[in-house]
Amino acid sequence: MKRIVLLRHGESVWNKENRFTGWTDVDLTENGVEEAKRAGRMMSEAGLSFGMAFTSYLKRAVKTLNYALDMMNLDWIPVEKSWQLNEKHYGILQGLNKKETARKYGSEQVFLWRRSYDVAPDPLPDNDPRNPRFDVRYSEVPAGMLPRTESLEDTVERVVPYWENCILASLDRYDQVLVAAHGNSLRAIVKILKGISDEDIVNLNLPTGIPYVFEFDDALRLRRDYFLGDEEEIRRMMEQVAGQAG
Amino acid sequence: MKRIVLLRHGESVWNKENRFTGWTDVDLTENGVEEAKRAGRMMSEAGLSFGMAFTSYLKRAVKTLNYALDMMNLDWIPVEKSWQLNEKHYGILQGLNKKETARKYGSEQVFLWRRSYDVAPDPLPDNDPRNPRFDVRYSEVPAGMLPRTESLEDTVERVVPYWENCILASLDRYDQVLVAAHGNSLRAIVKILKGISDEDIVNLNLPTGIPYVFEFDDALRLRRDYFLGDEEEIRRMMEQVAGQAG
Repeated sequence: MKRIVLLRHGESVWNKENRFTGWTDVDLTENGVEEAKRAGRMMSEAGLSFGMAFTSYLKRAVKTLNYALDMMNLDWIPVEKSWQLNEKHYGILQGLNKKETARKYGSEQVFLWRRSYDVAPDPLPDNDPRNPRFDVRYSEVPAGMLPRTESLEDTVERVVPYWENCILASLDRYDQVLVAAHGNSLRAIVKILKGISDEDIVNLNLPTGIPYVFEFDDALRLRRDYFLGDEEEIRRMMEQVAGQAG
Repeated sequence: MKRIVLLRHGESVWNKENRFTGWTDVDLTENGVEEAKRAGRMMSEAGLSFGMAFTSYLKRAVKTLNYALDMMNLDWIPVEKSWQLNEKHYGILQGLNKKETARKYGSEQVFLWRRSYDVAPDPLPDNDPRNPRFDVRYSEVPAGMLPRTESLEDTVERVVPYWENCILASLDRYDQVLVAAHGNSLRAIVKILKGISDEDIVNLNLPTGIPYVFEFDDALRLRRDYFLGDEEEIRRMMEQVAGQAG
């Protein structure tokens, strides 16, 4: 039995302030740290262990992974960090409060940006200091691949090759791997794994800090998937995060 | 200018309890966490940044690295973890209190084990549960390479190939790298870097949580080395840790 476990990072400072985050490198809140530790304890109690782990270039995901691994005494396992697992890039919305944004652009436009599959927010101007090309961490990414905005479709397109070539491929060597990432990069993975349509994937709201387990047979066919923890609580959490800016 | 910075992990639970730790995977104390964060702030204030980092398989070093990188907003850089950077293996002494050990084996014997270059404590019996061969994290290390005890000389011998092939070699690609490890694995590196004799290296007591900077010219010749922070305080710290079990 092979397993991949997906873990969405806990509450960040901008989740709390209701601002669009995207590629902005915002820290976890104290509550987010506790969510991460709790996820580690849940996986440990479920008897899970991992041969390696994957995360993004953003500290809210990296730290969620670190805290969870520490609770499992798996601090020592190899961790691969990749920009391809970053949150969806929110273009000019990054840093803006959701309410401000609705005032500025109209709530219908904001709804479209947030909930359509293939419409991206307006891109950051090329010389905007938030443009990833000014950030040293992306200096080795080919310029043509760095986004200045993304639709969920764009996010899926950059996650999928990494998913196939690195994460899924790691099951050749390891029985179980962990992926700590973001609402939209994890949506991309779930879409591929479960064959969810473009229309339906935008309505999938993964709960934060709740390990999502995918089990595969030896031919790497998905056999079943389930969340760890109490079903009722998870349903409540999924409704709660539905309104949360990524 | 190329730089390698060495960082000895902060206080662990067994440092505080005055027990021999070696390869036992003991956590940092609250104070140890603060030392790690402070080290990160010091490096940040000194204008240091890193392309990648190295650490051991032991959580007191991994967590020291994670906390320091987080303070530098370098959570995203690649980290390579390796058993070769582990603390010296203390054989049957692992887990014992230093005072108990002196009562049991005599203080002269303990002094010899702790302060000689080439005398190792008695090895763990092959079936001792503390034998690293029972620990999943070492399952890919060839059995003949796993120690059941080590002298400092043994530690140096396993650190040196990793130092040359991985850490020093990383300067081809990166200008500055960070190594977060242990009193004795870092002694091994300092011995090689500075050509310190077998007799003198046992008297080098690196302070915990104080970044130790080595600067190289383009031909990777060592130009100078220095600690970050206040000289007087560092001298006091080095005297203090001289009595600390590894």
